[in-house]
Amino acid sequence: MQQRDSEAAPPTLGVGMVGYAFMGAAHSQGWRTAGRVFDLPLRPVLAAIAGRDAAAVRAAAGKHGWAAAETDWRALVARDDVQLVDVCTPGDSHAEIAIAALEAGKHVLCEKPLANSVAEAEAMVAAAARARANGQLAMVGFNYRRVPALTYARRLIAEGRIGTLRHVRVTYLQDWLVDPDFPLTWRLEREHAGSGALGDLGAHIVDLAQYLAGEPLVGVSAQLETFVKERPLLQGASAGLTASGGAQRGPVTVDDAAVFTGRLESGALATFEATRMASGRKNALRLEINGELGSLAFDLERLNELSFHDHREPAATAGFRRILVTEAEHPYLEAWWPPGHALGYEHTFAHQARDLVEAIASGTDPVPSFADGLQVQRVLAAVEESAQKNSVYTPVQAVEAVQA
Amino acid sequence: MQQRDSEAAPPTLGVGMVGYAFMGAAHSQGWRTAGRVFDLPLRPVLAAIAGRDAAAVRAAAGKHGWAAAETDWRALVARDDVQLVDVCTPGDSHAEIAIAALEAGKHVLCEKPLANSVAEAEAMVAAAARARANGQLAMVGFNYRRVPALTYARRLIAEGRIGTLRHVRVTYLQDWLVDPDFPLTWRLEREHAGSGALGDLGAHIVDLAQYLAGEPLVGVSAQLETFVKERPLLQGASAGLTASGGAQRGPVTVDDAAVFTGRLESGALATFEATRMASGRKNALRLEINGELGSLAFDLERLNELSFHDHREPAATAGFRRILVTEAEHPYLEAWWPPGHALGYEHTFAHQARDLVEAIASGTDPVPSFADGLQVQRVLAAVEESAQKNSVYTPVQAVEAVQA
Amino acid sequence: MQQRDSEAAPPTLGVGMVGYAFMGAAHSQGWRTAGRVFDLPLRPVLAAIAGRDAAAVRAAAGKHGWAAAETDWRALVARDDVQLVDVCTPGDSHAEIAIAALEAGKHVLCEKPLANSVAEAEAMVAAAARARANGQLAMVGFNYRRVPALTYARRLIAEGRIGTLRHVRVTYLQDWLVDPDFPLTWRLEREHAGSGALGDLGAHIVDLAQYLAGEPLVGVSAQLETFVKERPLLQGASAGLTASGGAQRGPVTVDDAAVFTGRLESGALATFEATRMASGRKNALRLEINGELGSLAFDLERLNELSFHDHREPAATAGFRRILVTEAEHPYLEAWWPPGHALGYEHTFAHQARDLVEAIASGTDPVPSFADGLQVQRVLAAVEESAQKNSVYTPVQAVEAVQA
Amino acid sequence: MQQRDSEAAPPTLGVGMVGYAFMGAAHSQGWRTAGRVFDLPLRPVLAAIAGRDAAAVRAAAGKHGWAAAETDWRALVARDDVQLVDVCTPGDSHAEIAIAALEAGKHVLCEKPLANSVAEAEAMVAAAARARANGQLAMVGFNYRRVPALTYARRLIAEGRIGTLRHVRVTYLQDWLVDPDFPLTWRLEREHAGSGALGDLGAHIVDLAQYLAGEPLVGVSAQLETFVKERPLLQGASAGLTASGGAQRGPVTVDDAAVFTGRLESGALATFEATRMASGRKNALRLEINGELGSLAFDLERLNELSFHDHREPAATAGFRRILVTEAEHPYLEAWWPPGHALGYEHTFAHQARDLVEAIASGTDPVPSFADGLQVQRVLAAVEESAQKNSVYTPVQAVEAVQA
Repeated sequence: MQQRDSEAAPPTLGVGMVGYAFMGAAHSQGWRTAGRVFDLPLRPVLAAIAGRDAAAVRAAAGKHGWAAAETDWRALVARDDVQLVDVCTPGDSHAEIAIAALEAGKHVLCEKPLANSVAEAEAMVAAAARARANGQLAMVGFNYRRVPALTYARRLIAEGRIGTLRHVRVTYLQDWLVDPDFPLTWRLEREHAGSGALGDLGAHIVDLAQYLAGEPLVGVSAQLETFVKERPLLQGASAGLTASGGAQRGPVTVDDAAVFTGRLESGALATFEATRMASGRKNALRLEINGELGSLAFDLERLNELSFHDHREPAATAGFRRILVTEAEHPYLEAWWPPGHALGYEHTFAHQARDLVEAIASGTDPVPSFADGLQVQRVLAAVEESAQKNSVYTPVQAVEAVQA
Repeated sequence: MQQRDSEAAPPTLGVGMVGYAFMGAAHSQGWRTAGRVFDLPLRPVLAAIAGRDAAAVRAAAGKHGWAAAETDWRALVARDDVQLVDVCTPGDSHAEIAIAALEAGKHVLCEKPLANSVAEAEAMVAAAARARANGQLAMVGFNYRRVPALTYARRLIAEGRIGTLRHVRVTYLQDWLVDPDFPLTWRLEREHAGSGALGDLGAHIVDLAQYLAGEPLVGVSAQLETFVKERPLLQGASAGLTASGGAQRGPVTVDDAAVFTGRLESGALATFEATRMASGRKNALRLEINGELGSLAFDLERLNELSFHDHREPAATAGFRRILVTEAEHPYLEAWWPPGHALGYEHTFAHQARDLVEAIASGTDPVPSFADGLQVQRVLAAVEESAQKNSVYTPVQAVEAVQA
Repeated sequence: MQQRDSEAAPPTLGVGMVGYAFMGAAHSQGWRTAGRVFDLPLRPVLAAIAGRDAAAVRAAAGKHGWAAAETDWRALVARDDVQLVDVCTPGDSHAEIAIAALEAGKHVLCEKPLANSVAEAEAMVAAAARARANGQLAMVGFNYRRVPALTYARRLIAEGRIGTLRHVRVTYLQDWLVDPDFPLTWRLEREHAGSGALGDLGAHIVDLAQYLAGEPLVGVSAQLETFVKERPLLQGASAGLTASGGAQRGPVTVDDAAVFTGRLESGALATFEATRMASGRKNALRLEINGELGSLAFDLERLNELSFHDHREPAATAGFRRILVTEAEHPYLEAWWPPGHALGYEHTFAHQARDLVEAIASGTDPVPSFADGLQVQRVLAAVEESAQKNSVYTPVQAVEAVQA
Repeated sequence: MQQRDSEAAPPTLGVGMVGYAFMGAAHSQGWRTAGRVFDLPLRPVLAAIAGRDAAAVRAAAGKHGWAAAETDWRALVARDDVQLVDVCTPGDSHAEIAIAALEAGKHVLCEKPLANSVAEAEAMVAAAARARANGQLAMVGFNYRRVPALTYARRLIAEGRIGTLRHVRVTYLQDWLVDPDFPLTWRLEREHAGSGALGDLGAHIVDLAQYLAGEPLVGVSAQLETFVKERPLLQGASAGLTASGGAQRGPVTVDDAAVFTGRLESGALATFEATRMASGRKNALRLEINGELGSLAFDLERLNELSFHDHREPAATAGFRRILVTEAEHPYLEAWWPPGHALGYEHTFAHQARDLVEAIASGTDPVPSFADGLQVQRVLAAVEESAQKNSVYTPVQAVEAVQA
């Protein structure tokens, strides 16, 4: 474990979180843990949580360790003990909450995807730019950048270890919609979720591809599909990704699956597949990047491992190495357990919290920024446009160089 | 090992082979071995081999066990002791040789891809149809259909074990062109090879996808790329996939890589990637097929294994099973070794020989037929057309139902 | 996430922990997290921590979230706000602290191995039995029983899914002593550690083998080895498994590696290997159990996965399944993340905390008990005796049936 | 493919084979293929095969391509057209046939294990020594030394790439005896097979361990077990590893499983497990060798792969590499297919044939020699002695340094 340099307690950072479902639970664990493992310059305090149902939000506050509960997110944003607002709601409310929080002088962490539309995302970027002038920071929660194996993969690529990129291929395969009787939760409704597999899973892999490559996608050619076009209407509340439905059915208004090819700025070819219909694949975010000097491969279902092929090795001893990314030399690992002692999914949220707290303390810009989130949104929009236009190659409007 | 029912020696089938490079060596091993392992109704006799260089073709005949050598393929086709012509030349001569052999009353086995163009393939299909009336049979050599794991995968799909198909994703990754100084062999010249990774590797995965799914692709959206646009001119002869080049460079006229998405007739989404630029991947033909009731996965670098997920299993005990496809119950395996004793790449050629000999003996149509080869050719043509037309979704002209 | 049945805050359970190195950090994370994820009948309160260095223990308390710090474990044991003493010290002090805590009316959780000798372990079992009469509970911290994949493996075995056991093979491979200049930490000194790889790693795999099999080892035949017989004397403090040494060397008084075979009560054969000298293996606790009806396999470096072969499947579709043990149906998983979202090493400590808290609340005996710890100690003693007696098969003195 | 230097046909080497079951089929494929793939100095001719059943041996000759059939092995040994006798019978006849062949002036290849007893093996070594004086050569068929991945592993170890050895662990797991109704074939009868899993599977892994380490085992501590003590008497002939039994049962007189630990001459610790009762494991010869500078791992079920960890790599990029042993630089591979095109089980017999033919042509001693076979036999005898003596560590009588 890291040792504190001094015993003096650091100043605190009051966190207020909006939303408390799956992402809320994960973010709570991140906020609770980050300061216990890393030596942070500011101590995160779980100040308040907001949700519409008074009883449920009080229960969530008690369970997850938040000091107070609010039933109106505006009240949370207005609290003096909240310096950072963490937005964990469905995508349709991201823009409103995040912009209000920034305008109220708060730092903001917003779950991915940044928004449900490019226009919302643009407004958020503008709000973040205005707030930046006042010293407020904004970050979008593409937490997979903080899987140590992927942070390390980015480092290897940035160091030139695999040379000029040729191919990026990424899939994100889940199977929770294979059953045609899984009900119509908000994630299957366009007005709440914006899109389906595309915005939920595709956003992750587009962000990762650009992050790892260190360059943006400049165009895409896409197909979208909704295999199961009607599903049972939801009965009662859905918790996380589980829910039950009734006899009546309603239309699914988002995609079940998205497949697309693309080009990175440097000319590398990229392929993407995001689906909730891949029987037996639970969280198979799999990627491989081939460069002139080597290759990297990763599977989120084995998130402590990174495969690395060094093409400069003699052919007789070359091969993909299974690096256990649990060494003290690896990103974030100096503060965790000895080599070989696995981390899990939730640690990405502790890492995200650490990095954001350090950025706030030092006044530097956190990544991924809202502009990075907008860039992803523009790719998703180009995917939808291409799919509507018979898969024709569709350019992605540039935001700015993706920050690495 | 299979036991012969009778000791009476079966009648013979004289085989004449045109070409003796990599494919010639592999086919030779197949012809030599098939009758020693399987109880065939006709005994293949390695009658004659043809090649342009007299000394080289004599050496090849001696080495691989062919009784005679010819320097003109027309002489081979004319030989009375040849009843089957096996075409192992580069794609630009397939049509001429195969059609001549069929017209000379021979059965024909033609290496994949069937031809370098749709027009040639159509002429070959027509010739095969005419010859069929005389009892001559024609088969195209998509040997990977005879990897036992893939033959068995087809059986499971045909039996409905994975239900309605949702996704087919196939990659074929090699890395022998990563080095920009690898020279310009015939495989990199459009006039000989027709195309690059597309025709060489893409043809395999298109055929496999259609074979396994039991249905054709109806449209594609594609990108092609030649990353290294000039390479050293070849010095001396190339043997198989190895060669050396000089100081002068010439243009590469085929693709290094092809990425495309597609639709199967049933509506399933398919993704394809064929490349010779994937550092560290030697022969990574990897596929996964997701259906409503289960999934299958395969990797040619581990060709004795098939992964199968049964989605009807209780969630707590479900998971991809690694089936070692070496049981007597598996296709072709009744004649080989005990369980767990691996087969290799070359066995696909013995299996192909067995199936073709049995078809000839029984007068039934072998698969894949020339029509199947034409279907693949039309997909490849649609890929090229889509790539030229900004990746727009391009329909594939139907041939007929793919035979399964 | 689990839902609380009621919002009424549960009563608290004051925890006092002795020791705050690697195990202390891991236990702290377990105590902090258990009540935030699981709905516990008692809320664990991190009341106090004890250590000899006043500054260091205060820093540790602040970092890990303990309310108070003590420099004498006796003072901690005497505190009124401590109802449970968690012993995380080196093995040579386990017996003294645990017995004192039990005699002071506290529940006790003691890290593994239970003690450095059978005599100490016997005294601890006796103390636990006396305390049990007063309602105090005692548990030994074999945390790997709480890896969900292993808890689930036990369930499958108990249900008869793999039938009569034939083989148990377990290795626990690490490599942190491969470097001959790694210094002499307390883990390499017999007076503190009791033994080397045997007590540290071997204790885990002996416990797991007996736990999974549901029966004790009745005899062993063993070899022990210390490959590097002298190492640099330690300079400064060691933190966890890292340390640095000086120019002077001293004798290593424990084993680097232990290999042994054994018999389970039912007659199944078992093989064990524990080593700190396996280059490249970081935490490779690998086990396979073969029964008449099936087999199970596991690797701690991939702790979210369990391999299961059902021998009653038809041969053609049988194979080891990779079960991702992340389904709501799997042990402990109902309270964590959606399927496919990996857990890590530290979660075993949260699970251990949950189970112990529930046992305390309900007054039932927790497992593994001190008697289970004594049983392991007797196996380790038999291993040492066999190794001293030229590997002769050495019976293990029975304690009682291992609780499952 | 290798190119012949000259077109002149090489002189021939007449091979006579005794036995034609599983091993006979595998050796036949090796003899048929070796000269077609490798440029051999002598051309193997499949001259004659011997077996007791006249019809069956004639059928086998026809099927496998042997020119003549004999019903008495003595007649085969006496044939002028046979210069090499290949002994593929059960172990109880190895000594008699091999010694007679050597005395008749023939070279001998004898399947493993060399014999059923140390005394027989000693007589064979003596006969080989006498014959050597006349220029006759003798080799024992431990074919797994010729799996390219293992030949290459030996090369890496001999070059010091993994440094001083610490651990050798090898298992050979099969499951064809799990079913208690599998009948009593000759492999389960002590008088024919000598022992069970020990001689069949254990002989392979003892030879491999010594071959790879480049040094002999000096002592062992062992347990043997026969889990199923009676099995149905055999009905009809058994073919290979499949057979069917009747209602009557007889005693199994060999072991089902053998587990043992051992010491190599250098002090490295070794563990071994050979069993036919490991449900789901078909041919799982798995080994791992840990040295001070690195480690190697291998699994016969994935025989084209070798895992190599280089401990001198920086920790952050170190990891076990999956080397596809299919490069032209790898042993035997220069003559086979392009990289990534898998070889199978049977290729070991072609490699064995190549190496023996080259040794005969050059008059050098082939390995493994009969002395190497005797060394293995002595280890097996020590295993049996230790198992009888309560697992006490039992020295292995030295033969001579194992040839590498």
